[in-house]
Amino acid sequence: MNLFAKVPRMKSITQNSTPSKILSGKVVTLLFYEPSSRTFASFAAAVKRLGGQTLEIIDPTNFSSVSKGESFEDTINTFEAYSDMIILRHPQKGASENASLQAMVPIINAGDGIGEHPTQALLDLYTIYEQYGRLENLTGVLTGDILNGRTIHSLIRGLSLFKNNTLYLLSPRELKLSDADRKEFIKRNISIIEIHKESDIPQNADFWYWTRVQKERFITNQEYEKVKNKFILSRDLVDKYAGKDTIFMHPLPRVGEIMPEVDLDPRAYYLRNQIRNGMYVRMALLALVLGGIK
Amino acid sequence: MNLFAKVPRMKSITQNSTPSKILSGKVVTLLFYEPSSRTFASFAAAVKRLGGQTLEIIDPTNFSSVSKGESFEDTINTFEAYSDMIILRHPQKGASENASLQAMVPIINAGDGIGEHPTQALLDLYTIYEQYGRLENLTGVLTGDILNGRTIHSLIRGLSLFKNNTLYLLSPRELKLSDADRKEFIKRNISIIEIHKESDIPQNADFWYWTRVQKERFITNQEYEKVKNKFILSRDLVDKYAGKDTIFMHPLPRVGEIMPEVDLDPRAYYLRNQIRNGMYVRMALLALVLGGIK
Amino acid sequence: MNLFAKVPRMKSITQNSTPSKILSGKVVTLLFYEPSSRTFASFAAAVKRLGGQTLEIIDPTNFSSVSKGESFEDTINTFEAYSDMIILRHPQKGASENASLQAMVPIINAGDGIGEHPTQALLDLYTIYEQYGRLENLTGVLTGDILNGRTIHSLIRGLSLFKNNTLYLLSPRELKLSDADRKEFIKRNISIIEIHKESDIPQNADFWYWTRVQKERFITNQEYEKVKNKFILSRDLVDKYAGKDTIFMHPLPRVGEIMPEVDLDPRAYYLRNQIRNGMYVRMALLALVLGGIK
Repeated sequence: MNLFAKVPRMKSITQNSTPSKILSGKVVTLLFYEPSSRTFASFAAAVKRLGGQTLEIIDPTNFSSVSKGESFEDTINTFEAYSDMIILRHPQKGASENASLQAMVPIINAGDGIGEHPTQALLDLYTIYEQYGRLENLTGVLTGDILNGRTIHSLIRGLSLFKNNTLYLLSPRELKLSDADRKEFIKRNISIIEIHKESDIPQNADFWYWTRVQKERFITNQEYEKVKNKFILSRDLVDKYAGKDTIFMHPLPRVGEIMPEVDLDPRAYYLRNQIRNGMYVRMALLALVLGGIK
Repeated sequence: MNLFAKVPRMKSITQNSTPSKILSGKVVTLLFYEPSSRTFASFAAAVKRLGGQTLEIIDPTNFSSVSKGESFEDTINTFEAYSDMIILRHPQKGASENASLQAMVPIINAGDGIGEHPTQALLDLYTIYEQYGRLENLTGVLTGDILNGRTIHSLIRGLSLFKNNTLYLLSPRELKLSDADRKEFIKRNISIIEIHKESDIPQNADFWYWTRVQKERFITNQEYEKVKNKFILSRDLVDKYAGKDTIFMHPLPRVGEIMPEVDLDPRAYYLRNQIRNGMYVRMALLALVLGGIK
Repeated sequence: MNLFAKVPRMKSITQNSTPSKILSGKVVTLLFYEPSSRTFASFAAAVKRLGGQTLEIIDPTNFSSVSKGESFEDTINTFEAYSDMIILRHPQKGASENASLQAMVPIINAGDGIGEHPTQALLDLYTIYEQYGRLENLTGVLTGDILNGRTIHSLIRGLSLFKNNTLYLLSPRELKLSDADRKEFIKRNISIIEIHKESDIPQNADFWYWTRVQKERFITNQEYEKVKNKFILSRDLVDKYAGKDTIFMHPLPRVGEIMPEVDLDPRAYYLRNQIRNGMYVRMALLALVLGGIK
């Protein structure tokens, strides 16, 4: 929780007129093997807000020695020579772990395929923590592709580290938890309730966490069309089930599963607090790991 | 004219040994949906010359959530969360206006298709203003695609805000003003004279503004070949019609309509003063809007 | 040698907690017409380590006025207007020389096709110099595509400026020196010994300089397969021929010609000292040319 304790200070840095020098003189490599504009831009902004500079290497398999057949390990060794830290996005699970075995500089995992996306999990947890001042005794509704959704699985794991949380997992039956995941989560310290229709949404949950059903997970377009946007966060749904303090979250991008009519609702955190917290939490992480902040 | 009054100070910043801190601690997003190296680089340089940092997002429809179907509005909301200003280049008319309705940070239009490209207009006007100390009582020759040329239309509108200006519009008949534009300009406070052959160029105009006939506007290559480079700025043309103070301008890139033999003529402003003013004027704009310069 | 004398100071800058201000307020354009991740990143890092900022223009033939048919000269004129220096990578021999004739700002050649890649040569020479405190009375083994290898030719020329050096050139016969090059090198002040089998490698050379056989030089894949990796730097080879102080160098990327089993050998400089020297030497160059360091 030391990380979360630093976030308000990061927030105030972005509002101050005096620029931060926490990362002054530092060079951070953003090595992104696949597109992710939000993660990329929020990390880049975080470095710059703290006074650091970036080396930005996007799609190195096209623009680089990688296209000449260089190994991943050699690429990591190269960029660590030029910089104080590598922020790595890679389509392959385990890439960040491999990189950190190879490198002497810190590696931050900015998403490794079906593996982890730890800073996304941190910003989601922080958004809830900021609202309630705690990460226990909470009730949440998680919606979307419960079967494959990486952000959902991370949030379940994260909240299971705190006591007395209850999560409703709302999805089409085709996208419910796998047996393996269900078994894993049951062992953890968290109550999981799987639901498949709107009328089972509990009243007044503390947060709703909506997600996109990722088209790229489906083999046929038909299968995708069948399940996408089965549950849409609309004004109507809000009026029926949300409490006055229920916050609405989404990792973004959204493609129809939240209606724009909800955007101006003060409980809609997805376009405001949650995006911003993405930058603040990453700033806090950089400040702790590289900036010598205790 | 407050903007123009700041330009000399910007010029001196780039020559000073003491770096500017006017945008120190600020992060500016360059969100470019289509290529424009000159506009992109001059804005990026302007931010950096003033001590700010940039988030550079080029072609977001490929590298980003946009490719996952995110709306333009959500993209704008994302980048405004990470930065203090968005400089937007977009192929669609009205995009910047839409963005500014959506965003709480300032949006600068860096060109929106057949819409406007206001900083280009400003740098063109400033280049004339710097030379003559006024924007009235001027005579100019504007050449190229008078029918479609965005920079030409902007310059006509800009100069019509000042009194007693006369503009000769030189083009092949196929590329003369549309009736609608002619009507609009006639209502404005400016004299327009349409000409179609070299021998009608007036002696000793205050400025010549040459432009490229844009290939991408033509359906067939044949139509393009017929009209491109009908009027070429050559040493011969200069000797016949230019005065000793006539300045030669071009928004660039050029592809043959100005001969390199003219480049070293001291009146050739297109490769020197005009490009440089592009950066200085953009610096002044950034300093006024974001840097707290009054 | 003034350049080399500055390198240790550059090294200490990257380790200092006080950021350098040597390039503070300066903007350096990286104009790269072809991919080269290592050269690109080390130059960008060098600028930033010294407190400067970069304009990074990659593949301008796609993203820029160049695609509209702009001449190389106009592109150079544009970027020199926005920045204090241009670092140019171009596939065509002589491009940097042309640019420097055109521009008033300094141009640094970051590789021009089959022409030169001077900063690579400098970092190679510096790596040897750092190890031995001299660039004379040295024995080296150079391996790979001796016929076409630009880095090998530069290293031969560089070492021929100092006295009493002996170089063994190890290659398949298909890739031995051209007659023209042999004649040129013989005239220079250096001993060249061409060898074609491992058993001719001298014992205890001062350095081994391995290179990749570049696939792109061959017309058929068959020809390439025949000669690639004929000589592999392996533990076995090291045990047989290397001395206890022989250093192992490679300009990278490697694609099989050095086995990973050698990476942890303290004499393996290719993944450590040599990559890092690439950044330090470029920093020293920037500091001398643009930073006012004497």
